[in-house]
Amino acid sequence: MARAISDIPVADRHFEDFTPGAVAEFGPIDIDETAVITFACQFDPQPIHTDPVAAAAGPFGGLIASGWHTVSLTMRVLVDHYLARGASLASPGIDELRWSQPVRPGDVLRVRATVVEARRSQSKPDRGLVRTKVEALNQNGQVVMSMVAMNLFRCRNPG
Amino acid sequence: MARAISDIPVADRHFEDFTPGAVAEFGPIDIDETAVITFACQFDPQPIHTDPVAAAAGPFGGLIASGWHTVSLTMRVLVDHYLARGASLASPGIDELRWSQPVRPGDVLRVRATVVEARRSQSKPDRGLVRTKVEALNQNGQVVMSMVAMNLFRCRNPG
Repeated sequence: MARAISDIPVADRHFEDFTPGAVAEFGPIDIDETAVITFACQFDPQPIHTDPVAAAAGPFGGLIASGWHTVSLTMRVLVDHYLARGASLASPGIDELRWSQPVRPGDVLRVRATVVEARRSQSKPDRGLVRTKVEALNQNGQVVMSMVAMNLFRCRNPG
Repeated sequence: MARAISDIPVADRHFEDFTPGAVAEFGPIDIDETAVITFACQFDPQPIHTDPVAAAAGPFGGLIASGWHTVSLTMRVLVDHYLARGASLASPGIDELRWSQPVRPGDVLRVRATVVEARRSQSKPDRGLVRTKVEALNQNGQVVMSMVAMNLFRCRNPG
């Protein structure tokens, strides 16, 4: 059986530690109304994210978090608990980012990371690309956000 | 010839105003070192984003913005100038988000939005889905970030 990702401290984590099929969960993330409004006023100033009164009369019946806020909060959890710390190189990008349910103040999210693929670079064998399905779930078990993240990590045993 | 998106004020903009092939540019976005560090300390606390000294010795030879910061700054520009204000409904998600070049303090970005597809809903004919290729370019004309955004907008003439 594959060793769990969490068996390796983030400080020591390398490409080899991301085994396809491995699953890890992190959290909780508390969704705070003031934080929702503060983020949205800066980056996504739409009334459904910034104005509780207007949002109450809107399509979601209340304030919801900017999707970018939900992603950013999820990123924080991944940096703290999932990504290799010293061995993490840049991320080329993200596929299939979806906001499938509204995220509301008072919600408590957790993050589930599933290693989908781990492929050593042919051209630069000191590193490898890991694809991770990342899901944020609320307190009712609903997936509120999902994405497939690509991350480059250095190998423990290069080439 | 299709009317330019900017001919319709955001307050009056509806699904019908997003014509495939239409291109609009917005900006500038000034990348500020303090803002880069502040965002990253909260959401993406990796030394390449938070610590100028460590970043100078790292793979990019200096501090770079969190990719999520670049996306969030781009979102702010889209909310202010591109998305329909009253007629904007939720976004189902994003495809093919790519960070293709580092974004550094002192960079000046602009945002280019190209309408890729506009499809009226069959089941809910009062709204339609617009796909937009969004690109952020730096002062050297390099694409630093790109994504395909999905947005639901209400129609001016429903059903």
